[in-house]
Amino acid sequence: MDNKPYLVQMNGNGVHGKTTVNAKTLNSTNGKGVHGNSIHHVSVNGSLYPAKAKSRRQRWEVKPSEMSKNTLNPIRAIVDGMKLTPNPDKPMIALSIGDPTVFGNLPTDNTVLQAMKDAIDSQKFNGYAPSVGYLKSRQAVANFYSCPEAPLEAEDVILTSGCSQAIDLAISVLCNPGDNILVPCPGFSLYKTLAVSMGIEVKLYNLLPEKSWEVDLQHLESLIDESTSCLIVTNPSNPCGSVYSKEHLQKIIKVASRHCVPILADEIYSDMVFPGCSCPSMASLSTDVPILSCGGLAKRWLVPGWRMGWILIHDRNDLFGSEIRQGLVKLSQRILGACSIIQGALESILNNTPQSFYNKTISFLKSNSEICFNELSTIPGLNPVMPSGAMYLMVGIDMDHFPDYKNDVDFTESLVTEQSVFCLPASAFEYPNFFALW
Amino acid sequence: MDNKPYLVQMNGNGVHGKTTVNAKTLNSTNGKGVHGNSIHHVSVNGSLYPAKAKSRRQRWEVKPSEMSKNTLNPIRAIVDGMKLTPNPDKPMIALSIGDPTVFGNLPTDNTVLQAMKDAIDSQKFNGYAPSVGYLKSRQAVANFYSCPEAPLEAEDVILTSGCSQAIDLAISVLCNPGDNILVPCPGFSLYKTLAVSMGIEVKLYNLLPEKSWEVDLQHLESLIDESTSCLIVTNPSNPCGSVYSKEHLQKIIKVASRHCVPILADEIYSDMVFPGCSCPSMASLSTDVPILSCGGLAKRWLVPGWRMGWILIHDRNDLFGSEIRQGLVKLSQRILGACSIIQGALESILNNTPQSFYNKTISFLKSNSEICFNELSTIPGLNPVMPSGAMYLMVGIDMDHFPDYKNDVDFTESLVTEQSVFCLPASAFEYPNFFALW
Repeated sequence: MDNKPYLVQMNGNGVHGKTTVNAKTLNSTNGKGVHGNSIHHVSVNGSLYPAKAKSRRQRWEVKPSEMSKNTLNPIRAIVDGMKLTPNPDKPMIALSIGDPTVFGNLPTDNTVLQAMKDAIDSQKFNGYAPSVGYLKSRQAVANFYSCPEAPLEAEDVILTSGCSQAIDLAISVLCNPGDNILVPCPGFSLYKTLAVSMGIEVKLYNLLPEKSWEVDLQHLESLIDESTSCLIVTNPSNPCGSVYSKEHLQKIIKVASRHCVPILADEIYSDMVFPGCSCPSMASLSTDVPILSCGGLAKRWLVPGWRMGWILIHDRNDLFGSEIRQGLVKLSQRILGACSIIQGALESILNNTPQSFYNKTISFLKSNSEICFNELSTIPGLNPVMPSGAMYLMVGIDMDHFPDYKNDVDFTESLVTEQSVFCLPASAFEYPNFFALW
Repeated sequence: MDNKPYLVQMNGNGVHGKTTVNAKTLNSTNGKGVHGNSIHHVSVNGSLYPAKAKSRRQRWEVKPSEMSKNTLNPIRAIVDGMKLTPNPDKPMIALSIGDPTVFGNLPTDNTVLQAMKDAIDSQKFNGYAPSVGYLKSRQAVANFYSCPEAPLEAEDVILTSGCSQAIDLAISVLCNPGDNILVPCPGFSLYKTLAVSMGIEVKLYNLLPEKSWEVDLQHLESLIDESTSCLIVTNPSNPCGSVYSKEHLQKIIKVASRHCVPILADEIYSDMVFPGCSCPSMASLSTDVPILSCGGLAKRWLVPGWRMGWILIHDRNDLFGSEIRQGLVKLSQRILGACSIIQGALESILNNTPQSFYNKTISFLKSNSEICFNELSTIPGLNPVMPSGAMYLMVGIDMDHFPDYKNDVDFTESLVTEQSVFCLPASAFEYPNFFALW
């Protein structure tokens, strides 16, 4: 074959084609490794490549990257260190698992399963979806969450591999290493896991248990500086189960507005609130602050393993502009998003799941949390905080009342040893002297 | 409720509990923004938070992160800039799409679809899977790819959201910013997209078209220095469709062994080789070099949209050690992996898909590539390189023979304008004067 077309310069990345190798090269690469101080050269088509004899590795030393070393999961760090030996005479009761499907008492709806099977049978959803998701599926999410105060179009929706990737993309597009983000304490540990791995500083703002976990607004505001690139608000809250009033959300938005800090609203539990309690989206209350709202199918539709999440871009004053939107699209191209089958089923899932299913889930969660709250309230030294939504309940421990126990980890360890009941020590959320029921 | 348990110090992250705010604070946060040079303070439980009056943002300036700006897709960069106006008299023929499902002539097997529906009906796979995947599914992958020369256990398998995330995790665990990786040229653009976004330098090593795209070993070796943390080998090749002989693979491994560079083997097209051609895995040929082999269901099972990928950890000399394995586990916890339904179906997909399905796909691909190669060979100035597997065919353009065209982009643009045939200019792979048929 004619060599000519192959003799092209490769943007300075060397040339290819017939190669002539001099003896010295062969010596320098004869399996004994390079030796001595003399610089060897490789000749390819007359170009000399320095063999960099001195600077090459002489032995194996494969080390994990700094990023992997800095990717830490605080819950694992605490729980893996606990001595969890249940009482052999009592069956284990695990109240530490944030997965609603584990015990089989919270199945998803048949509508959801049928939508999946229809998507499979159609054979239309086996190929690559666009990195931000099928337009039709994005439109379905936009229609589902759009409201007069915060209208949404398909282009405002980016589909992701679970809410975790939504949060990852949102932080990744808004923050540079050295920036800081404001994270609720107690709060979902993934925010810190992701931020620290990216060299972003985490500033924890306090929630106030005696005010049903409302934000300590003064503390929040005191943490803001010019390197603050994002305020994360989780509502309803993991792990507190609290739901903020319209008025409190407006106060939080006002702080962000005053200091021009965009909001990452983790609203994966949106609409999972107990009867009589309303839960407006942050975007519906913001007149200026741009908001990336992260959500997904995991909790309300009870299929967390399916990894179907999304980002809703709310930016009516065009403060994000096209740059942030393009940034999100670029980042979505790194690994592509959610499974195409679930994307294909999404429109039907959102449009056809009956209200009765949502209601059933909520009343189940409400009655369970009432049982826990009422029972725990009778125990001296324990201060449960009644949730208004989501799947969690936090309990304060008056350590003075339990002198035999050093802290919440010690306390919950003993709960396992004596009663075979496992609750999560809130130290896992950097919130000592509490424990969480899931 | 007793406030006492709330009065805990928050690892230096401030305290929470009853808050007392002085008048000065309210002035400093009255919605007009902070003003003047005086430092205001917020008093919470007696602790003073400096309000950092001077250092806060006074106006909106939300900019995308450097990482998002550095996440570039070369194919999009080239293709989006092309003038693609097909000839209105001729139907568009797109030979530029790497998705086997688009034209409906390569459907997946019913076994695969049935496995998915069974997984859905079982209702056992709706919850969170472990971040590295279900043990049973990892075991199934290990059994499928294990061989005497390169045995695999479940613990050697990490399930990911598509092969893209497998490659992302493999690069992320092996490389730090400032390191360099060796990438084939021409090659799959994602390697560079991911590496550059992480601040990792990409060194392109040449493939030799006149040698059926074998590696220019001298050029490869000349690029290695002590900052080289990974050698990426794609076999079978995207976009060349080449399949390396056992002997050539051994030579590549020898270079890596000589300079102690671990290998990322992109083997997503493994076993997709034409009859008479064998395709041993790199791991089965390596006696010392540790290898992360990336693969998935996308190509061989013709379901790229499902995002089911994996990393096979081959490290018989324990050169990765537990650190790299733990690093991969940590990184997998960032966004969790593949959809749990597909993980649930994986064992059945791997064990029950009939050989006849694989054979049918291969003979279809082979006959198509033969038709393309034979026809293109008759055209003066075009030099097609016959593939041995995968789904691609590269064609060299002798530009001297086509004086009317500036380069491969210009050439393929005119192919669209005149003939409504769209091939991908290889400049998209930083490989000018070629084009690719997919």
